[in-house]
Amino acid sequence: MIINHGRYNINKRIDLASFNASIVTVGDELLIGQVVNTNAVYLAGELTRIGITVSYTMTVQDDVHAITAAIQDGVKQCDLTIVTGGLGPTPDDLTREAAARFAGVSLYTDPNILEALQHRFALLGRSVPHGSERVASVPEGFETLSNAKGTAPGLLHQTDQGPLVVLLPGVPHEMKSIFSHHVIPRILQSEGRQAMAQRTLNVAGIGETVVQQHIDSITDQLDTDLKIAYLPGIYGVRVRLTIQGEDAELRICQVERRVQQQLGEAIFGCDEDSLQSVLGNLLRDQSMTIAVAESCTGGSVLDHLTNVPGSSDYVLGGVVAYSNSIKKHQLGVNRDALDQFGAVSESVALQMAEGVRDRFGSDVGLSVTGISGPSGGSPEKPVGLVWIGYADQHSSWAVKRQFGNDRAMNKAKSALAVLDLARKALLKRNKEHRGIQ
Amino acid sequence: MIINHGRYNINKRIDLASFNASIVTVGDELLIGQVVNTNAVYLAGELTRIGITVSYTMTVQDDVHAITAAIQDGVKQCDLTIVTGGLGPTPDDLTREAAARFAGVSLYTDPNILEALQHRFALLGRSVPHGSERVASVPEGFETLSNAKGTAPGLLHQTDQGPLVVLLPGVPHEMKSIFSHHVIPRILQSEGRQAMAQRTLNVAGIGETVVQQHIDSITDQLDTDLKIAYLPGIYGVRVRLTIQGEDAELRICQVERRVQQQLGEAIFGCDEDSLQSVLGNLLRDQSMTIAVAESCTGGSVLDHLTNVPGSSDYVLGGVVAYSNSIKKHQLGVNRDALDQFGAVSESVALQMAEGVRDRFGSDVGLSVTGISGPSGGSPEKPVGLVWIGYADQHSSWAVKRQFGNDRAMNKAKSALAVLDLARKALLKRNKEHRGIQ
Repeated sequence: MIINHGRYNINKRIDLASFNASIVTVGDELLIGQVVNTNAVYLAGELTRIGITVSYTMTVQDDVHAITAAIQDGVKQCDLTIVTGGLGPTPDDLTREAAARFAGVSLYTDPNILEALQHRFALLGRSVPHGSERVASVPEGFETLSNAKGTAPGLLHQTDQGPLVVLLPGVPHEMKSIFSHHVIPRILQSEGRQAMAQRTLNVAGIGETVVQQHIDSITDQLDTDLKIAYLPGIYGVRVRLTIQGEDAELRICQVERRVQQQLGEAIFGCDEDSLQSVLGNLLRDQSMTIAVAESCTGGSVLDHLTNVPGSSDYVLGGVVAYSNSIKKHQLGVNRDALDQFGAVSESVALQMAEGVRDRFGSDVGLSVTGISGPSGGSPEKPVGLVWIGYADQHSSWAVKRQFGNDRAMNKAKSALAVLDLARKALLKRNKEHRGIQ
Repeated sequence: MIINHGRYNINKRIDLASFNASIVTVGDELLIGQVVNTNAVYLAGELTRIGITVSYTMTVQDDVHAITAAIQDGVKQCDLTIVTGGLGPTPDDLTREAAARFAGVSLYTDPNILEALQHRFALLGRSVPHGSERVASVPEGFETLSNAKGTAPGLLHQTDQGPLVVLLPGVPHEMKSIFSHHVIPRILQSEGRQAMAQRTLNVAGIGETVVQQHIDSITDQLDTDLKIAYLPGIYGVRVRLTIQGEDAELRICQVERRVQQQLGEAIFGCDEDSLQSVLGNLLRDQSMTIAVAESCTGGSVLDHLTNVPGSSDYVLGGVVAYSNSIKKHQLGVNRDALDQFGAVSESVALQMAEGVRDRFGSDVGLSVTGISGPSGGSPEKPVGLVWIGYADQHSSWAVKRQFGNDRAMNKAKSALAVLDLARKALLKRNKEHRGIQ
C-alpha cells in the first residue's frame, strides 16, 4: 500500500495481509476485573489498520512460567508476538525474566539505559530510587527500543525461525509511544507484498444504521473489492474502507470521494481527526476566537477543545455555570427566563451563548444546558434533554437534543454535539464568506 | 471468606482460592480494535470477588478450530472455563459447533428452546426469522441455562475429569443475566474451600517505587501470607492486598490498618473511590460549596468533579481562563501580577483561587495555571510547570508542581493534583474543626 502517514513517513508498496500477530498482556490487575484492557484494543486496532491479522489476544498473570509459555505459544503460531506489561521496576514485573528464559539467554544490565535513567532522575534533582535500575536489565541479544515517555525501554527479538517478539511497557502512553515510533516502522520495512490501502471516514451526529443505509444505496457505484467496517462511537461512527490489490491507493481515493458526496457534512474528517481538532482548524482559518458556557457538561466541552495542542490560539476560555445563580451573575442570564422557562430551555441556552461571547469578547459563543441525570428529570423535561446554543456577530440560535438515561453518556454525547454543531455553523459561515468574495 | 454480597445473599464460609478459571471471549470484532472487551473484565471481577483466581483470559477469532483449541486448553489448565460469544443465530456464530467437537458429541435441536423462541416471536406478532432456530441447537449432554434477556441460552458441561465448561452469549446484558442467575450459584455450591480476602488501597501524589519502599519498611509487621500488587496510575498507585487462609477477612483488616498508618493521607480511599468522589464527600459532609478557576487544565478539573452523580449539591461551577485577559476580567487577577510574575506564578494562582471564590460566592476556590506544552516553555518556566491555588474563608495558598513534557499527561496530572490538594486541605480543616469542638 502507499502509506501516507506523516508520523512514519513511509511511502512504499507492501502487503501485510498474510502476516499474523498475537497480543499478550501481562498483569494480575487485568485478571481481577479492575482494569479494562485498553492496550490490547489499541494494539489490535493499529495492527489491523496496517493490514495485519490479529489471530488472538491473551492476558496472563504476573508469573514467569505463564509469560514464558505465552511467548512460546505466540511464536509457534504467529509472525509477530507483542507482550505488554511486566517491564516496570518492581519485583512483580517479570516479563524480562520470561523473555530471557524463552530465548535461553541471560539478563545483563545495559549501561546506556542505566545512564539515561540516572540522567532522568538527576534532572528532577533526585537519585535513582532503589529498585528502579531493574528497568536497565536486558536479555542478551535483544534490541532495546527507546522510551521517550518513561524509564523502561521496549525490547525486540527476532527469533532464528523468523517470528518477531516485541516487549512493551504496560503504561499506555509509554506503550503507544514506543509502538508507533519503533515497532510500526519495523513491521512496515517488510517487502514484496500485495498493495493495500485503507481510509477511515469519521461521521458525527448519525448512527451506524443510517450511515450503512446511505452507503448501501450507492454500493453499485463503489469498487467491487471494497471492504467496509462500521466502528460505532459515542456520537457517530467511523467508517473504515479497505481495498487490496492493484492501484489500491488510487481506488480508495475514488471510493472516499463517492462516500463523501453521499454523506456530506456528516463526515467531519478522516483517520486521526477529532471534532475538536477540526473545529479548531476552522476557527484558526478564519482567525476567530471561541468561548463556551457549560452547564450539564461540566467543563468537558472546554476540556475537549483544549486537548488540541495550540488551542490557546483560539480558545479564550469559558464559564462552567452549574448553579442558576452562576448563570445569572457570571453570564447575565435574566431571572425571568430562568423562572419562566427553567434552566434547560431555548431562552437560557441562547442567553448563555450570547452572555459568554459578550463577557469574554470572543467571536463565537457556545452554550449547553441540560439534565444529565440520574436525578433532576420531569415528564416535560426528562433526563437526557439538552439545549445547545450558538452565537456569533451575525446570528444566534439554540437547538434541542434528547439523549438517554446514563449520566456519563449524556455528558459525553452533549459535549460532542456542541462541538459538532459549532463545526457545522462555522462551515456554513465559511461557505457564505467565500460566496461573498 | 464471609461473602456479603447482596445480590446473591449468601453468607457462608467457603473458599474458592484453590479453584481457578479461564475466560475465553470469541469474536473477530474484539481482534480488530473495534470493541473493548468488557465481558472479560466483568467476568474476571465477579469471579475474583467470590475468591476464584482467573489464570488467564484469551480472545479468539470466529473460527471453529480456534474455539475448540481454546476450550481444550482451558479444560487442561483450569477448573472452570467460561466461553462468551459465538452463540447467536448467524453463520459466524460457531461456539456450539466447537463445544460439540470438543466433547466429541453431536448437536441436536432442543424442543423446549425452540418452543420458547416461537413463543417469544409470537408475542411480537412475528414468526421466527430464518436462521434464528440455530440458537436451539445444543451439544448432546450439555445442560441449558435459560436466558431471561434474549434468545440464545447458556450451556454448561461437566467434563468427565471434573472441570466445568460454561458457554454464554456475547451480548453483555444477556451474558451477565445468565452468569449471575445460573453460573455463580452453581460455583458457590462447591463447599469446604479455603478463605480469601482482598482490599485495594488508592494512593495519590506518590509513585509506585516510594509506596513500595514504605510498605517494604514495615514488612516484618505484616501478615506473612500477604500478597501485594502495585497498580500504577496517572497520579498515584493502587495497592492491592490479598490474603488467603484462616480468618482472611480479619487479617486483611489488620494489614489495611497498618498500611494506612504508614502511608497516612496519601491513601485517599479504597476499591472504587476516586479523588473526585472522596473530595465531593468531604464537601458534602461540611456543607461546603466549591468553584474552580482553570487555565492549563482547560476544564478537566470541573469535568472530573461533575462526573460524580449528585455533584450539583456542592459544585457551583467555575471559569476556564485560557487567556490572560480572561484571568483579568473574569477573575480579577491584577495586571501587575501578570506583568511582573507571569500567568504561571504563585501570585496569579492565588488571585485566581481567591477571585473565583469571591465571584462565585463559594466556600472553597481552587485554581490551576501552568504550561501544558508542547510550546510555551522557557528555561525558567519549563513545560510541565504548574501552580495550584486554594482559598477558603480562613486561608489561601498556592503550591508548585513540575510534571513532564507530554501535553495530555500534564493536563491529566495537573487536574488530579488539584483534586488531591483540595482533598488534603479539607481533611486538615475537618480535623481542626473537630479539634475546636
